[in-house]
Amino acid sequence: MRYRFLLIPPFRLPSETKWGYQTLHLEADKVKEERLMNAEMVLPYLEDVEWDLHPGELAGYGDWPVETREEFTFAANARLPNIREACESGNYNGIVLLGGGEPGFLEAREICRKFGVVCTANAHSQMYLATMLGNKFSVVDISGVHNVYYRDLIYQHQLQNRCASIRNIGMRLPRPGTEDDLQLREERQKALSGKKSIAVENAITQAEIAIKEDGAEVITLGCSGVFWLRPFIECGLQKRGWEVPVLEGYSASITLAKLMVDLGVNASGITYMGDHQIQLPDKIHV
Amino acid sequence: MRYRFLLIPPFRLPSETKWGYQTLHLEADKVKEERLMNAEMVLPYLEDVEWDLHPGELAGYGDWPVETREEFTFAANARLPNIREACESGNYNGIVLLGGGEPGFLEAREICRKFGVVCTANAHSQMYLATMLGNKFSVVDISGVHNVYYRDLIYQHQLQNRCASIRNIGMRLPRPGTEDDLQLREERQKALSGKKSIAVENAITQAEIAIKEDGAEVITLGCSGVFWLRPFIECGLQKRGWEVPVLEGYSASITLAKLMVDLGVNASGITYMGDHQIQLPDKIHV
Amino acid sequence: MRYRFLLIPPFRLPSETKWGYQTLHLEADKVKEERLMNAEMVLPYLEDVEWDLHPGELAGYGDWPVETREEFTFAANARLPNIREACESGNYNGIVLLGGGEPGFLEAREICRKFGVVCTANAHSQMYLATMLGNKFSVVDISGVHNVYYRDLIYQHQLQNRCASIRNIGMRLPRPGTEDDLQLREERQKALSGKKSIAVENAITQAEIAIKEDGAEVITLGCSGVFWLRPFIECGLQKRGWEVPVLEGYSASITLAKLMVDLGVNASGITYMGDHQIQLPDKIHV
Amino acid sequence: MRYRFLLIPPFRLPSETKWGYQTLHLEADKVKEERLMNAEMVLPYLEDVEWDLHPGELAGYGDWPVETREEFTFAANARLPNIREACESGNYNGIVLLGGGEPGFLEAREICRKFGVVCTANAHSQMYLATMLGNKFSVVDISGVHNVYYRDLIYQHQLQNRCASIRNIGMRLPRPGTEDDLQLREERQKALSGKKSIAVENAITQAEIAIKEDGAEVITLGCSGVFWLRPFIECGLQKRGWEVPVLEGYSASITLAKLMVDLGVNASGITYMGDHQIQLPDKIHV
Amino acid sequence: MRYRFLLIPPFRLPSETKWGYQTLHLEADKVKEERLMNAEMVLPYLEDVEWDLHPGELAGYGDWPVETREEFTFAANARLPNIREACESGNYNGIVLLGGGEPGFLEAREICRKFGVVCTANAHSQMYLATMLGNKFSVVDISGVHNVYYRDLIYQHQLQNRCASIRNIGMRLPRPGTEDDLQLREERQKALSGKKSIAVENAITQAEIAIKEDGAEVITLGCSGVFWLRPFIECGLQKRGWEVPVLEGYSASITLAKLMVDLGVNASGITYMGDHQIQLPDKIHV
Amino acid sequence: MRYRFLLIPPFRLPSETKWGYQTLHLEADKVKEERLMNAEMVLPYLEDVEWDLHPGELAGYGDWPVETREEFTFAANARLPNIREACESGNYNGIVLLGGGEPGFLEAREICRKFGVVCTANAHSQMYLATMLGNKFSVVDISGVHNVYYRDLIYQHQLQNRCASIRNIGMRLPRPGTEDDLQLREERQKALSGKKSIAVENAITQAEIAIKEDGAEVITLGCSGVFWLRPFIECGLQKRGWEVPVLEGYSASITLAKLMVDLGVNASGITYMGDHQIQLPDKIHV
Repeated sequence: MRYRFLLIPPFRLPSETKWGYQTLHLEADKVKEERLMNAEMVLPYLEDVEWDLHPGELAGYGDWPVETREEFTFAANARLPNIREACESGNYNGIVLLGGGEPGFLEAREICRKFGVVCTANAHSQMYLATMLGNKFSVVDISGVHNVYYRDLIYQHQLQNRCASIRNIGMRLPRPGTEDDLQLREERQKALSGKKSIAVENAITQAEIAIKEDGAEVITLGCSGVFWLRPFIECGLQKRGWEVPVLEGYSASITLAKLMVDLGVNASGITYMGDHQIQLPDKIHV
Repeated sequence: MRYRFLLIPPFRLPSETKWGYQTLHLEADKVKEERLMNAEMVLPYLEDVEWDLHPGELAGYGDWPVETREEFTFAANARLPNIREACESGNYNGIVLLGGGEPGFLEAREICRKFGVVCTANAHSQMYLATMLGNKFSVVDISGVHNVYYRDLIYQHQLQNRCASIRNIGMRLPRPGTEDDLQLREERQKALSGKKSIAVENAITQAEIAIKEDGAEVITLGCSGVFWLRPFIECGLQKRGWEVPVLEGYSASITLAKLMVDLGVNASGITYMGDHQIQLPDKIHV
Repeated sequence: MRYRFLLIPPFRLPSETKWGYQTLHLEADKVKEERLMNAEMVLPYLEDVEWDLHPGELAGYGDWPVETREEFTFAANARLPNIREACESGNYNGIVLLGGGEPGFLEAREICRKFGVVCTANAHSQMYLATMLGNKFSVVDISGVHNVYYRDLIYQHQLQNRCASIRNIGMRLPRPGTEDDLQLREERQKALSGKKSIAVENAITQAEIAIKEDGAEVITLGCSGVFWLRPFIECGLQKRGWEVPVLEGYSASITLAKLMVDLGVNASGITYMGDHQIQLPDKIHV
Repeated sequence: MRYRFLLIPPFRLPSETKWGYQTLHLEADKVKEERLMNAEMVLPYLEDVEWDLHPGELAGYGDWPVETREEFTFAANARLPNIREACESGNYNGIVLLGGGEPGFLEAREICRKFGVVCTANAHSQMYLATMLGNKFSVVDISGVHNVYYRDLIYQHQLQNRCASIRNIGMRLPRPGTEDDLQLREERQKALSGKKSIAVENAITQAEIAIKEDGAEVITLGCSGVFWLRPFIECGLQKRGWEVPVLEGYSASITLAKLMVDLGVNASGITYMGDHQIQLPDKIHV
Repeated sequence: MRYRFLLIPPFRLPSETKWGYQTLHLEADKVKEERLMNAEMVLPYLEDVEWDLHPGELAGYGDWPVETREEFTFAANARLPNIREACESGNYNGIVLLGGGEPGFLEAREICRKFGVVCTANAHSQMYLATMLGNKFSVVDISGVHNVYYRDLIYQHQLQNRCASIRNIGMRLPRPGTEDDLQLREERQKALSGKKSIAVENAITQAEIAIKEDGAEVITLGCSGVFWLRPFIECGLQKRGWEVPVLEGYSASITLAKLMVDLGVNASGITYMGDHQIQLPDKIHV
Repeated sequence: MRYRFLLIPPFRLPSETKWGYQTLHLEADKVKEERLMNAEMVLPYLEDVEWDLHPGELAGYGDWPVETREEFTFAANARLPNIREACESGNYNGIVLLGGGEPGFLEAREICRKFGVVCTANAHSQMYLATMLGNKFSVVDISGVHNVYYRDLIYQHQLQNRCASIRNIGMRLPRPGTEDDLQLREERQKALSGKKSIAVENAITQAEIAIKEDGAEVITLGCSGVFWLRPFIECGLQKRGWEVPVLEGYSASITLAKLMVDLGVNASGITYMGDHQIQLPDKIHV
């Protein structure tokens, strides 16, 4: 097949955790379709792909999903050896990093490029694709520290002049200390079973405020824990009269990886220089 | 088929012109594979596409290829009705505008969006994809006024902070007044037949200077009359020790159109607002 | 006389149209003072000018004023030959392009420069003069797609860092599909006859919000169909305690053309390069 | 007359100074045409103006022309009372600040606006007019500290994204410690008497390098002591094949002041707020 | 001692003025601790410093504190000779310019650098330190013209991309024409004596709005007349649940001067070039 | 003592490595003064500090110094637990992260802030201090991938508009595959023993080119393996006539940490939000 992709989760939670969310804590021996987050939404993008889903590296810092910068670095560090191993296996021509905060993306791209493997990640793909669809994008995210971590990514990707705002749905992922908060797990279940869900309501409203007030003309999603909201926001905006594209990370990263494979291009060998470079520019422009 | 694309040339020259170049002056009744510029390079991207190649609208301003801003507007104007007609036909889910200077792209996108048809063009696709591959890109172009026209596109697309320079190969397309210049037609023939070609030498050298001195980390091509240089530059840079991706417009625009069809997204209805909008933001952010 | 100017409307509507507005549909054989939009406001700027008013090229896309990007390109294309002809006539040392959206301005400037004729247009003149009067400007415009088209101009002119916002008066020009909307024609008549007019009220209020909230310190006007509002906004702001300059396009472009004639300067021969250039920079900086 | 302008020099040197330059040290009782720097070049712009030339305030810091930031502040301070007095006299509707480094311009504009008097200055006028003529401008200046002082002005006027470079002619104004340097006074005399002048050669060469290498598409002049070079540079560039406009400060500021009087506009009352303001924005946007 | 600093007030008011504020009008023969504004807050920073407090130069423009651009230039001019004299004395290795609007700072730095004396000022120190603590800062200031003067400083220091807003407490310093306004002197007294003070309430509220709405993540203070508010705002924000650093100018400038002395660095000899430079760059980059 | 600082190296190499450099591979039981890199240069800054030097976490990825992005993440991850432990110990009010590429700085700052401990790092401190000393800075670094990793930091810190270039000394740290290159270890030894050293020559020359051509007005150092060059560059530039400050990371970070302790401020609780925040802004501004 043209596309041979490995999808790598940002981390895996122990199955017995009480902070599980979606498929993050599923056992590694489940079939990949079951372990894939929002499978029904994502599988169509994988139809013409020979793909594996890495089990994900067990979270070392605790048994809840990452949100702080510290936790993201632990996750980045943990999955880099898996990425290198996947490159060395020669089995893949593309690695798709799962996880809205794309821990380890720049490092992974550095590794993959040397092996001629393309590498995409959920924030980078969404943001840049968003700039091809409209003037500015906003990010709809969970609330709290994840927002400012995510802003770091926007600065790193140099897209501050195209980002209108980062807004949140007023809820977080499960986590010690959030026991008394409104639970996103429950709100997601309600939505999926066709009931009214505050998570959905908030997401649509925040997207609309981003459009009406902040200057957003495209909507993207931050944490992968809110990617399931894509069709709900899309539909909700449409009902309110807005014709605004909504992106989520998995489909954005998978299709972008395909595009790069199709074009036969990979990341620049200067931007993602390896450790032994033949030629160097006179200086590095910033 | 998933992709039903119409490719529309920027213009067509009369077949009897003495300023013909590549396929620009081929008769409209030739088969599409023959009329397609750099067919051997581009056809692989169309394998899974049901595609037509519009004959192109006959150039009204003269019988030479467009280079000045004035000529580009004539070309833009001439092909807009064809674009509208193609949308109305219901035959296509994507329109790929051919032509490095993408005459009429913003207008075309405005039209296409209303019909749910995606629309891509050669400068926009290359530039934005380049930003996803590396830090800054340079444009290798023909020389003269086309360079400053092309810069207008970069400002329009708001990518000035990601463009390192626009460099040229020291030659132009055929055109009244260029009779005594070195002829790109001939230099192209030499290159394709395996001979040493100044056009190729200059292109590689300018790309290399862009990388060494200007800060380019990705190379893109300006005028579609130099798109055939892609493999020569790619290979030339590699030989000189540079691992830098090189893009050209046709493949970039075809694969981007596919990506947008795959994702089920189109341009933002705010950025490319139609004439009767249901909802409006409180103000337009600039 | 020192100044010999040709004023060229963006287009002309057929006199029998039901979408006429101000003088846009007046017959071409009327005297120029009658055909000049907002003549009473503009004539003082023409006192020391030997001027003609081109009849304008008949709109080809329909019989209503331009608003969409598509319509603007049709208008641009239609008037370029008239501009070239005027340059070739040798009768003028300045061409003033009428029309808030300045269709064909960059192209016209390219043409005019080669003939030593200065060329100004309504958006460019207002915007740049605004930056000489205060920190940031806002645009007060008709509503809808014209706003985002106008934003394209701001990006093209690289003034995004000086534009606070584009706000609208909640009305549009006459146009198929707007029959049931509040009519700007009527609101204008009310204002001119000293009655309360919603167009005027909205314009003053939007200008004030732009100042109070968006950071505008100068007000400019977008579509030429709202240029007549200049004295009303100026006066309305003053009454509410704001000492903020208000510009409109005709006077801005006429006086700027005079300034350029006085200084003996024209557009740069690099920025607006002609088709056969003697000297070229090493590369084009973006 | 429509225009009643006062021209105010940046300072005056004592007539017995050994550091005199052009008219800076002429006695205040000379007729204004004699005291006007580069009168032959500037008088045509004053033909339709009722104008006075202020004698200039005697330099307090020494008897040489200003170059350092410290000296510029002394000059700014010294002429502000004269500006206020001129406003209070009611004799003028425009004040033109002479001096390339425009000491006291922002302060003067603050004062003048309250009196309904327009105020222009040599750096601001040139720079902003340059942005209306082409993409980027370079400044050709004397050498040394004046260059970095001048850069402060560019940052203050927020035009860093439109300035390609500040280049110098390798000479300074007369000044203690420059006795052994090449003398600009002498080089200027040579040029005016038709002889070869290093000042002229350097100026043309630096302008050309700015165009070829730095990205300049318009040339402006820094210190008023080099304004006399305008025709020499203009002509020199033309001979070398460059069609690039060259501006100098006096004509730029006079014509801009006329434009503002013609348009009936003055600086924004928010940007140049007075000390007792009726209305204030909710916050000041930066 | 390691640090030998001279603190120089922006100006001094005559002791008999009715527009006195804090210590600005105290007689010059008082002991320095008494003449130091907000001594209790500032003295701890001077414990390891051998310091003098210059009496300040008597205001020449009137007997009220500076607020307009004009007044700031008078103050700048007046204190420059004192700064030069202090440098020449050899008594100091640091000069700390007091006054929120830092009149004469660039000039002073130019002078001091030549003598090897470091020089800091209240706006520059606060702003730059703020950028080291968080993403964007807002300025809380007195109201009116001082805000736009202060914005000039932000542009001069090139920090517009890091400043979220300038907000004000709705009051001004004592000044002719403000007799009927709420008096900051009184409100300050109330606050210091533990009573409810509108100045304090407004300051906290404006800081909070800056954080909640404008994007401020650090708070700085504008006019030195509001520096006393630092602990009140800090505490008020904390009570409302915000963990946001608050800076004021005196402590920021004193500690920054110490840091520069410790590091053995001073301002760049290119940025703050003296009048006789040995080496010059090829051109000045802007 | 006022300052209680822990200095934490970026990593530690096994003592038996053949890729040791400076003190990176010294055994953890040596006294801290011996383990401190460039102790003679740095100790003066620690005189008034009660300090510890953490042994550094043993490098997990190999036994050579970090250079690639991948290696930097391993280092970041490895030292975060040590940083958290140090905070929890209550022994310190400041943590100074050693290492030019500051692995884990943002994460460390997030952790430290919650404990009221200030945290500084070598790139951030140098860069921001550089912007307080002059217009733009350049970085002098080792060659290769470290340059582009370092550029990531500049984008992350949003200082691209203040960085003139990243230049390199043409050598790298010891590393597999560099056996045949010129050895920085040897060149350093030569320099310290007063002999001519290519490392020193190159560093001075690159710094000078950065100043003459790139627009640098302050010099900073990239990798901590070149920090020892500070006095050599400073002195070399002075000899060539340049008065340009040169910074290195250890002293910059130590003095900045002191300043923050003195001012009683720490990083913003919004920028470096913790995991349970009381108050949140309405949206995150980017």
